[in-house]
Order: sequence, then C-alpha cells, then structure tokens
Amino acid sequence: MSDQTTFLNACRELLGETYVLTAAPDMAPFLTDWRDRFTGSALAVLRPASVEQVAGVLRACSQWAIPVVPQGGNTGLVLGSIPDASGTAVVLSLARLNSIRQVDAVNRTITVDAGCILQTIQEAAAAAGCLFPLSLAAEGSCTIGGNLATNAGGTAVLRYGNTRELCLGLEVVTPQGEVWSGLRGLRKDNTGYDLRDLYIGAEGTLGVITGAVMKLYPQPKASITALAAMASPAHALRLLGLMQDHCGASLTAFELMSTYCLRLVAEQFPQLPRPFAQAHGQYVLLELSSSQSEAHAIELLEASIGAALEQALIQDAVVASSVAQSEGLWQLREHIPLAQAQAGKNIKHDISLPISVIADFIALTDVALEAAFPGCQLVCFGHLGDGNLHYNVAPPLGMTDTIFLANQDAINRIVHDQVHASGGSISAEHGIGALKKADLARYKSPLELQLMRAVKQALDPQNIMNPGKIL
Amino acid sequence: MSDQTTFLNACRELLGETYVLTAAPDMAPFLTDWRDRFTGSALAVLRPASVEQVAGVLRACSQWAIPVVPQGGNTGLVLGSIPDASGTAVVLSLARLNSIRQVDAVNRTITVDAGCILQTIQEAAAAAGCLFPLSLAAEGSCTIGGNLATNAGGTAVLRYGNTRELCLGLEVVTPQGEVWSGLRGLRKDNTGYDLRDLYIGAEGTLGVITGAVMKLYPQPKASITALAAMASPAHALRLLGLMQDHCGASLTAFELMSTYCLRLVAEQFPQLPRPFAQAHGQYVLLELSSSQSEAHAIELLEASIGAALEQALIQDAVVASSVAQSEGLWQLREHIPLAQAQAGKNIKHDISLPISVIADFIALTDVALEAAFPGCQLVCFGHLGDGNLHYNVAPPLGMTDTIFLANQDAINRIVHDQVHASGGSISAEHGIGALKKADLARYKSPLELQLMRAVKQALDPQNIMNPGKIL
Repeated sequence: MSDQTTFLNACRELLGETYVLTAAPDMAPFLTDWRDRFTGSALAVLRPASVEQVAGVLRACSQWAIPVVPQGGNTGLVLGSIPDASGTAVVLSLARLNSIRQVDAVNRTITVDAGCILQTIQEAAAAAGCLFPLSLAAEGSCTIGGNLATNAGGTAVLRYGNTRELCLGLEVVTPQGEVWSGLRGLRKDNTGYDLRDLYIGAEGTLGVITGAVMKLYPQPKASITALAAMASPAHALRLLGLMQDHCGASLTAFELMSTYCLRLVAEQFPQLPRPFAQAHGQYVLLELSSSQSEAHAIELLEASIGAALEQALIQDAVVASSVAQSEGLWQLREHIPLAQAQAGKNIKHDISLPISVIADFIALTDVALEAAFPGCQLVCFGHLGDGNLHYNVAPPLGMTDTIFLANQDAINRIVHDQVHASGGSISAEHGIGALKKADLARYKSPLELQLMRAVKQALDPQNIMNPGKIL
Repeated sequence: MSDQTTFLNACRELLGETYVLTAAPDMAPFLTDWRDRFTGSALAVLRPASVEQVAGVLRACSQWAIPVVPQGGNTGLVLGSIPDASGTAVVLSLARLNSIRQVDAVNRTITVDAGCILQTIQEAAAAAGCLFPLSLAAEGSCTIGGNLATNAGGTAVLRYGNTRELCLGLEVVTPQGEVWSGLRGLRKDNTGYDLRDLYIGAEGTLGVITGAVMKLYPQPKASITALAAMASPAHALRLLGLMQDHCGASLTAFELMSTYCLRLVAEQFPQLPRPFAQAHGQYVLLELSSSQSEAHAIELLEASIGAALEQALIQDAVVASSVAQSEGLWQLREHIPLAQAQAGKNIKHDISLPISVIADFIALTDVALEAAFPGCQLVCFGHLGDGNLHYNVAPPLGMTDTIFLANQDAINRIVHDQVHASGGSISAEHGIGALKKADLARYKSPLELQLMRAVKQALDPQNIMNPGKIL
C-alpha cells in the first residue's frame, strides 16, 4: 500500500467511511473558492465531528506528512481555505463541529465549536438577551473558526473591534495532533505569551482552531440609521470626527460610498430607494445605537446632524424613520458589491489606511489610475470609521473584461504602491491566503517576514498546516 | 581583556562613558524592585538615547552572549524588570527614549518612544483634545514600554481594554539587534502573524519594545462618580449586569471594595470621607462618562441607581455632586493598598475569574483561608467589571509578620488552586516575571508551556532576553 492509501485507511478508521470523501463530485464543493476563481485538488476531504477526531486526523497527517487545509464555510476571498492543484493535501472541514457549547449571560461570553455558523452564534446570543456583534455579508454561511483564522472585520468593527478583539479564548489542535485548551473566559489574563492572538489571523497555518470563547455585549435598546451627503471624502472624514466627539461609542457604523457607487446600485437595482433628488459627491451611511432608548438615539443623531449642517460638513441628510427605511438604506450599501458583479468584472482591493491620510490617498490614487487607464471606473466604498476602503476598479467603457483583467497586476501595483507609501495595509480584513502571498512578500520588510517564518518553523516544523498560504 | 570588559568597552564606545553605569551607587536604583523585596546585581546599567543605540547594545549583547534585562519605570510588581543575583546581566534602561513622536488627532493615534512616562502621554493626548485612557496607580513613574511589556490593566479596562487593546503598532529591537518597524496606525490589518501581540505581554523576553502607536479616544464631556452599598458580592455582580444593560459603554469604572477594605482605610486615613453612616457588606465605586453632557451622565446614573434600588440590589448610594466629592470617593479606592501597607505586611494576589463565578469564588476561598489560618484578614477589592480581584491576605491579629510571611506559599496555594479550579488566572494584570514563574509552571498545561518555549526559542535562540522571567 502507498503511504497515501495507508493514511486514508487510518482516516476511515478514525472518522468512518462516510466522512472521508474521495469521489470527485463529493469533494467538489470543498475545492472551489467562494468567488469561483480557482479550483484546487485534494487527496480527500475529511469531516471530523469532534475535537478528538480533529486531533486524530492531525496525528495521522503528521505521521504521513500530509498537508492539511482547514476549512470552515469556505467563504474566504483570498484562496486561503482551498488546496492548491497538486492533489497532495487533505481538506479538513470543521463544519460538523457545530455546537454552541455554553452561553454565560452573566460573564457575557459564548463558548462555541469552530464550525458554528456566524449567524447561529448571533441568534444564540440574542436568545440569551445579549449581542454578538460580529456581522458581515457571509454571516449565513461563514463559520466562527474561519472568522477567527482570518480575523474577520465587517460592519461593527468601529464600535466592537475585529474578530480578534471579540475573542477571549481558543481551543487549538496543533500540527502534531495535541489539543491546547485555552478556552478561558477572562477579560484580563497576563500569564505568558499571547498564543491566542498568534493563532487568530494565522489562516490555519499554525494549527486548527476547534473552539472559542467569544465576548457578548448588552443588546442596544435602539439603533437608528441615516444617510448623509457631502462634497468630498475630506468632508466625510471631518464628519467622522464630529460624530465620534458627539456620540462616542454610540456611533456603531460609518460607511463611505462614492457617488459612482450609488449610481451603479440605482442602475442595477432600480427598485431600491433613492434617498436624494440630486447627486452629491460622497455619501455616508451612519448608525447610532443607544443603550437607553430610541428617543435618546434620535436626539443624539439630530443634534449631531444639526452640528454637521451648521459647520457645512454635509449638504443633506435623511434619517430613517422606520425599521423598513433603515433596512432600505443599509441595502444601498450592501448592494454595491452585487451591483458591481452584475455590471461586469472588477478588480477588488481591501485596503486600510491611517484615517488622516484617506482623502489624500483617494485623490492621488484616482489620478494615478486615470493616467494609466483613462476612463477606468473607481468603485470606492467601505468602513471609513476603521480606515478600511474597498477600492475597486472597473474597466473603462468599451474595454473588454479580458483586456482589463490582463492588467490586473499593473492595477494592483498602482493601488498597493500608494497604500504602502501612505502607511497602509494591502489586506485590511480579508487576509493573505494564496492570493496575496506575492504582495505580502513585496511589501513586508525582510525582517518581518523572517520573524513570521521563525514562528511558523517553531510551531509547524513539518510545514503541513495550510502550506503555501501567507508565507 | 575579559569578554565582559571588551563588551563594556564596546558599550562605552556606543553610548558614551556617562551612560554606561557600573559604580554600585549609580546602579542601585535600577537593581531593586518597586516593592523593595529583592535586589539583583548587574554587570552594568546601559542608558541608550535612541533606537539605533538600543540596536547597537543588543548586537553587542548577542555577540558576547550577555543577558539583557529591559527596564522602563521599574514599577513592576513581579520582579520582571530587575536582574537576578548573578551579576552577569546588563539592565537596559529605556528611560532616555522619551519623545512623543507624533500626535495624529484625526487618526486618533499617538506615536511614542517606549520610555515615555504614562502620564506624559495622557497629557500630550489631552493637549490635542483627546483621551489616552490607560490609567493606573504608577502612572507618574511607569513607562509605556513597561505597560506594553506587561500588558498593564488599570482602572479603565472595563471601557477601553488593556494596554494590548490600546496598541496599534510597535517598534521592536530583536535580540539580534535588528529593528522591526511595525509602527502602523491602522484599525484593521490582516497581513500575516500578529507579531505585535506576541511582544505585548512578553515582559521583555522576546525583544525590546522601543516605540509604539497607541489609540486615542474622544474626551468624554463629563464623568460622574457614585458609591453604592450592597449586602454581598453577588449583589454587586447583579448591579454590574444592570449597569451595563442600562449604560452600555458609558459605564467606565466598576470597582468592588469589601467592608473590611473601607474600615481599614478609615482607620489609617481618618481624614478621608466616610460616605455612609452605617456599614454595609460590600461597596462598588462606579463611574459613568457621557460623550454628551454632565446632565446626560447624571440622568443616566440616577435612572440606573433608581432601578437598582427598586430591584433591591443595593442598600444605599451616594452620588458625587462635585469634582472634589468625586475625587474623595476615588481616594477611598486608591488608599486601600496604602492603608494595607501602613497596617502591616500582607500577601497579594492579582487574580481574574469569569465574572459569573466570582461570588462563589470569594465565598469558597474565604472559608478555605479561615480554616487554614483562623482570623486572617481578607482585603478583597478590585476591578470587578473586568473580573479582576486584588485578593489580599493580612495576618490574624496577634500573628507576627515573620510567622505570617513564612506561610506565603501555603496561602498562595489555597488561593491559586481555587482560582485554577474556577477557570481563572493567577495573574490578571501584573504579569509573571520571576515572582510567579513557579506558579506558571504549576498551573499551565505542559502543552501551553511547550508552545511558549518554542516561540521563545524561535525568536531568542541565545536566551539573552530577560532570562529567568516567565519561563
């Protein structure tokens, strides 16, 4: 028997025949990425149902030196959760580890399996009268293990932080198949190196996250949404400062959308609301939450918007007066990527910048792209409150997708060089995976790469954990 | 010439004679810990003035295999910033790296040298109209580098998090004398392993932090302080839940004090206020901050206290009606450690627990200590909102300090065994240093210790960085 056959037999022994997928049609859904850009190949897809089974799989992988690609909901955007084309790796799906282990409403924590769907966790928290604030477009499909492995962001980062900030403890299976039980539900714990934050954001290259203790928050009594219109990104940034000064932690979302974004949405989804009669340069979707009452949220919002109008930071604003209106405003924001997809191909960038340089960054990068690709369409929107832009580029009218996409590297270079020069990050919330590995090598200092490699070598000396990702 | 002489000459060449201290009286202030419990010995105290000089020192230390003990304000409580008795190490004082490098009020960040005094940073932030929320008793002497190395906590963690949560980027000199420039001012950055959080809390055992980008916040418009009295820790915990539900992020402090704590303060500092005519079982000092106005803070506090009285969670409450009254209430809290010191020796514990088990923990541990040391005095106070107790034990009346302190290990064992059994941490905010190294080895799993050692070996293979601390 070949080593691979021996390994697969060991896996069948461990998990049962049913949960060792090797037939092509069974494996297919696990091998193609969410945006349908790449299909890898695998020796098998393994579907353990418990931490002990995960540990057993890892021991077998270590013994036979089989590369392991951990996978949650497979909704990642950087080719981090699918294998390469070699067919030598196994995909380790965590989807069957999907129990809510404990909700502690007094400690305000929830302990979950890594394979729990994000939305399931939100619902379990709500059922206990609490808020689990992590929220992003894929929440109906993505798993918390994947959110942790990529340190997912989303729309509530401004108030509650990234996934990293929401996690108190982890359970991790090492590449050697040992179980580290770090499921601590503590707000303070200074007992040695921060292994938790090392595994968070490591995209499955250091070990397999199998469980986590996540923070819960009191549910706000009310939230209110508004859309403000202004002349420029610089005005939007000044509005951000004003809103934070006036509202503090009550400001729970602050999303920038360019005029082109809303025009695109209006073209592709004419049924959605059009809040303003005339066009403005930029728009900000903002949300206030109050721990007190709806009246308090409205009072706070009206006072802030009044001050912004007085200082001529904004040109107009609409405040949602019902849940339906609020959802309508959020739909404008959420339909931008969908409208882009319908309109044709585009080249996406998930970047972050110091908030103080964003207006300059947009101006400089717009000019540089226009010079290199006259008439290209800039779809700039994102989580302005976090300094995170989705700065996407669509082809000039008349250019075919094929010709446009042939220029992907050149376009990425213009955007990412400008990001780097501005002290920004080429991956704000999506991670590196296989997709941005070359960019990481280009922009990180040799020392930082060397430190990362030293950590990788220390924890995964066989290099079996998601090889070819990040480093 | 001996290696040590050659090394010291190289340091003199690098820093100038004046900044290589070798005379005993010059070195003395750097060799004894803050609580005056241990005095180490050193080859020299080195006082570089720049990152380049720090890097040069580290290169020399690496070349001649000289152990390095980084030191900030030397206010640590766990013997982490002083050398051992061997006299083979150098103390590397960061105190001369004390510039505020940049304040960016728009990005709400401040970039500082590691040797900046915490209070200096608070003041620089305030001068720019912002709040740097980290606040702790030693703030007039401790440095931000030390705060980062120990992931310091303090009184504002409930709202703003530990030092870790306040840091966006670091500059670190490696044990090999290379400079990692990770001074990023970004809220989101998912580009590889989280080296920042690895150095934070590592107590100088992986590298030397020389600079940092810290988060700033809008200054609250008003803060209001109150002291509530209740029957038991269980009532205090229910009050915490109620306050968080009512006030959300406006609740900025929630400090527990037992009746014995306030009696001790009243005995030792009779000039301080005595807010209640009669004694109660427990007290909570709470602080609300408002981004709106003083009127809003008062309204919120009165509504919450009203609800707590209605639910019989509290027996009485006083609300400070002036800044002076507010300071008076805070002084009660801040004088507990001072009152303890005046009253005699005590054995301190800096522990954290899941908030849901704190009442049971206190009850069980009180009984266990009383059984072992009848009449011992329990001085239990701390940051209840973070699950962090300073659970200190003073001798029974009539027992000498010497006899009492001879039982230190036995008392620690009772407390820490109970902490461990309750899912808590034996060091919430002080770190491990040399003082708690044996406890760490006792309570951490062999796997977690092994993972930490692997990281240490990867980043400091010569073991020259603060050896004998943590691991």
